[in-house]
Amino acid sequence: MDADDPRRPLLGNAQANSRLRRVAAKLCSIESWKRRLPITIWLPKYSFEYLLRDAIAGITVGLTSIPQGIAYAMVAGLPPQVGLYSSIFPGLMYMLFGSCKDVTVGPTAILAALLAKYVARSADFAYLAAFLSGCFILLLGILQLGFLLDFISKPVISGFTTAAALQISASQLKSLFRISGSSGNTFFDAIINFFENIKTVQLWDTVLGISTIIALLLLKRATIKVSETATPFASRMAACWLNVVRARNALVVFAAAILAFILNLKDITPFALTGTIHGGLPKFGPPPFSTVVNNQTLNFEDMLAVFGGEGIVMPLVAILESIAIAKAFAGSTTVDATQEMLAIGMCNVVSSFAQSMPSTGSFTRTALNHASGVVTPAGCFFKAMLVLLAVTLLADAFYFIPRATLAGIIIVAMFSLMEVTIIKQLWRNSKLELCVYAVTVVCGAACGLEYGILAGAAADVARALARAARPPLHGTAFKVGNQDCVSLSLPGCLSYASAEHVQHKVRRLVSPAAAVVVMDGRHLYAMDLGVAENLVSVIVDLEKEGHRFLLWNFRRSHRLLMEDLHTGFEARFVDGPSIDQHILIGNGQADFKTNISRL
Amino acid sequence: MDADDPRRPLLGNAQANSRLRRVAAKLCSIESWKRRLPITIWLPKYSFEYLLRDAIAGITVGLTSIPQGIAYAMVAGLPPQVGLYSSIFPGLMYMLFGSCKDVTVGPTAILAALLAKYVARSADFAYLAAFLSGCFILLLGILQLGFLLDFISKPVISGFTTAAALQISASQLKSLFRISGSSGNTFFDAIINFFENIKTVQLWDTVLGISTIIALLLLKRATIKVSETATPFASRMAACWLNVVRARNALVVFAAAILAFILNLKDITPFALTGTIHGGLPKFGPPPFSTVVNNQTLNFEDMLAVFGGEGIVMPLVAILESIAIAKAFAGSTTVDATQEMLAIGMCNVVSSFAQSMPSTGSFTRTALNHASGVVTPAGCFFKAMLVLLAVTLLADAFYFIPRATLAGIIIVAMFSLMEVTIIKQLWRNSKLELCVYAVTVVCGAACGLEYGILAGAAADVARALARAARPPLHGTAFKVGNQDCVSLSLPGCLSYASAEHVQHKVRRLVSPAAAVVVMDGRHLYAMDLGVAENLVSVIVDLEKEGHRFLLWNFRRSHRLLMEDLHTGFEARFVDGPSIDQHILIGNGQADFKTNISRL
Repeated sequence: MDADDPRRPLLGNAQANSRLRRVAAKLCSIESWKRRLPITIWLPKYSFEYLLRDAIAGITVGLTSIPQGIAYAMVAGLPPQVGLYSSIFPGLMYMLFGSCKDVTVGPTAILAALLAKYVARSADFAYLAAFLSGCFILLLGILQLGFLLDFISKPVISGFTTAAALQISASQLKSLFRISGSSGNTFFDAIINFFENIKTVQLWDTVLGISTIIALLLLKRATIKVSETATPFASRMAACWLNVVRARNALVVFAAAILAFILNLKDITPFALTGTIHGGLPKFGPPPFSTVVNNQTLNFEDMLAVFGGEGIVMPLVAILESIAIAKAFAGSTTVDATQEMLAIGMCNVVSSFAQSMPSTGSFTRTALNHASGVVTPAGCFFKAMLVLLAVTLLADAFYFIPRATLAGIIIVAMFSLMEVTIIKQLWRNSKLELCVYAVTVVCGAACGLEYGILAGAAADVARALARAARPPLHGTAFKVGNQDCVSLSLPGCLSYASAEHVQHKVRRLVSPAAAVVVMDGRHLYAMDLGVAENLVSVIVDLEKEGHRFLLWNFRRSHRLLMEDLHTGFEARFVDGPSIDQHILIGNGQADFKTNISRL
Repeated sequence: MDADDPRRPLLGNAQANSRLRRVAAKLCSIESWKRRLPITIWLPKYSFEYLLRDAIAGITVGLTSIPQGIAYAMVAGLPPQVGLYSSIFPGLMYMLFGSCKDVTVGPTAILAALLAKYVARSADFAYLAAFLSGCFILLLGILQLGFLLDFISKPVISGFTTAAALQISASQLKSLFRISGSSGNTFFDAIINFFENIKTVQLWDTVLGISTIIALLLLKRATIKVSETATPFASRMAACWLNVVRARNALVVFAAAILAFILNLKDITPFALTGTIHGGLPKFGPPPFSTVVNNQTLNFEDMLAVFGGEGIVMPLVAILESIAIAKAFAGSTTVDATQEMLAIGMCNVVSSFAQSMPSTGSFTRTALNHASGVVTPAGCFFKAMLVLLAVTLLADAFYFIPRATLAGIIIVAMFSLMEVTIIKQLWRNSKLELCVYAVTVVCGAACGLEYGILAGAAADVARALARAARPPLHGTAFKVGNQDCVSLSLPGCLSYASAEHVQHKVRRLVSPAAAVVVMDGRHLYAMDLGVAENLVSVIVDLEKEGHRFLLWNFRRSHRLLMEDLHTGFEARFVDGPSIDQHILIGNGQADFKTNISRL
């Protein structure tokens, strides 16, 4: 029996039972539990070759994680070492729970930007945010609520990312030019602050920042192509250069720090420096459930109130980023979204016990990991170890990293986040979706990123509702013998919001001359009560004016509903052979004519 | 060219221009302005016979408006005369602007219940609510935003009405049994209060209240059937009796007041009475834009803050009630919803200058008006005059109306508001819509009526989104020669929320053996960017696995979009003759086979 068949029974008990059984079987099998701890799958097959490749990739990624970790801690307004801790512990957890070899977990610019306004009150909010976000993500994963993310559309995600890139870049103008004032909570705040304080621009920081940006952009583009006939030396040099390109963030920071160190020896400090970093291991312990702000003690409830409803955007963004990245690098294998949520949830919950900010998959570092040829999630282990070494041994050296260099690194990273091609695509194909994108970007830039994503999602809902309210209804006039007939084909879904529209439209499409009106319900799979009521009432009204109605191939459930609303309505329903079974073609024409001439 | 034709051009400039011209023509014609002041249409044709019939209907309705006006003022917690003023001025305005002869405007139980919590602070909120609601409704009418009401579905309206009837009945238990305590802001509050104070029940008020209910129910059912052979005297008696039945509310109140008056002469006052009414004309003047509550002066902004976001429910309910009533009594003529909004808006704005509470169409009084044979909106004039006479001349007599009698009248009026048959209909046909109904009733009864309607509307949106996220996709396997083929028919609308689902489903429906996959886009009229992206990506992936795709009869806009996302995608599209033009049948089969064999 075809699903479009009007005689198809409603969802039976058998179907529900088999579903229950499937879930039960899944819960009891060892395989499905192993999938929840993917290390049990890849570790037994681990080889020395894998180890080498993972180590190389891990160290390459680690060299980027260090400057980015410090930079993103700066974006959030946290001490630099927090950004490093947030690269270490999530990396270790992801090795246990992560299902995608390429994904690299750590602090990201967007999460840092979302966090900044809470950290402005107390750094404790960062650790609590990591804990709560982790719990929320775990909950979504356990309850299999990942489908909720389907309601954040592509234009909203792009708009949000673009707004975030704009805001984060703008917030770095302060460090890049070493101007006074605040870096602002929104893009517009930051821009206004920049122009208000433009007279305080410092020459040397500006020169260093701009040089950083230029150096990074040049290095990114400077790839050497080796012909196949090249000497072994030439190809080895090219491979070496590739590694230089990949470690460009670390190199730039290293160069700038050396410069600052040498100038410092000569007692010149033209740049704003990162300053003292309290290296070593973090203080382990539960995340802070109370804090002190301006001499006032805030308990857990007060802290929750500070996060408010929009605090939910942080975990949502964390999942969105991470799953989008996993999908982008999964190739043709499918991504287990539930497992990714469990992994990211665990990363955040565990790392919140070690002074970390919220973390998730990072696009730039994941791309680097992939390009460096990582084979298993063990790459995360090597990255974490490198960062751990750095924070324990090199903390004093970080003192000399100029802030303008870090700002330059952040701004360059933001260039790749801005999504502009989507504007062209949407302009050409869907102006309304472009509006959703614009709403997200403008709200995000003007009121804050959280409000951008919420406004975008709301605009999408409005668009979906507007569409549900105006389903297309087409009428075709034709003749059977001498009789004027009209056929009305109903769309797939008549939702409650379309009740008024359907009634008006039917009245308009039925021309006064039409003796017989054929309403084609073949494709109608869902009809709400309000629509059925209005449809029955307009049909009964039009029958009083002399039209005759033939309701063709309606589903059993819709026939029952309409009969329920108007006793005796049943007589108008006629079934013909289901056309779709014959693909685009059937032998219904004969039946159809017979039915009309019988009237 | 058929609308389903894939070659159909997008909305052209010509179409947009003609629409503009239509709107301009509408604005300039005298006819369309006359429609905005319907009295200019019916008054020139007015006759003496109309006058007689309108007067009879108006007086009959007026006799019900007086007790109901006093009773609903009581529900809102306002002085009784306010309920009467709210019958007078809106009635006069509706005579000018109303387009439905039957509709009777005045205070309603639901609006009164919504108003009660604001009036508990100060009566000034009632007048301001009338003004603001009126302005809001006028605005909706002028901006033609009536379509927004389409998003409140039948189950939500029924659920809201039922919750309102429950709450209003429960709030009257206090007066019916004359118990102590408050009447509560919600159904549950009122019920809890009733049981907490059940020991304070007063015998005589209870007896009078219950007698009122029984008398009203008996009178309602006591119609006399006159056979056609009856004497003129018998049929005159029957007509007389019908008038008694119609004026039953007034009669019951009259009887109870006489009883209280007589007992009062003998110095016995067993019942709680309405008490002194400050009759006469209201104080005319602008509605209060500031007020004093507990010795604190609230300015306009503070008052707005008291109404809050949920204050918007009052005007919405006013329009919903009024338009639903107009439709119920319009018969086969269509209701001009915009004009109804303008009329109700004017009623409220103007009456707020004369100490009135918000008013809208009342179901019981409109039904009475219709049954009494009203011919034009002039019936409202006679009703208003009768109420005006009562409030100026009889105000002292109202002193003796027992509160228990008014409570009885309200409770009986509520019986007819409760919608229970819809539960049976929804149970049989749509359990999910039943959930929406239940959410509305439970939230309305537990948290307050505004929250009920908002929760119901939100539940409906969730239902619409869930449906958009899971569109039906069917696959049919068939053979052309030796080739295994699968045809996938896409539904009418693929919204952003379905992007993930569509990708998974396509992957599942395409069996590994299928050499050719035909994707049928005939019915697809809307596809969002995210869906197109995922569709393109899954098609490209599956092609790598050896399947070949044929995209059949897609619209031009969707073809452009997919080509835009993946250059070279165009080659997969094939158009055949549009099947729908031949109604259920076409000659596409041959073309279709040719195309497949050409691959």
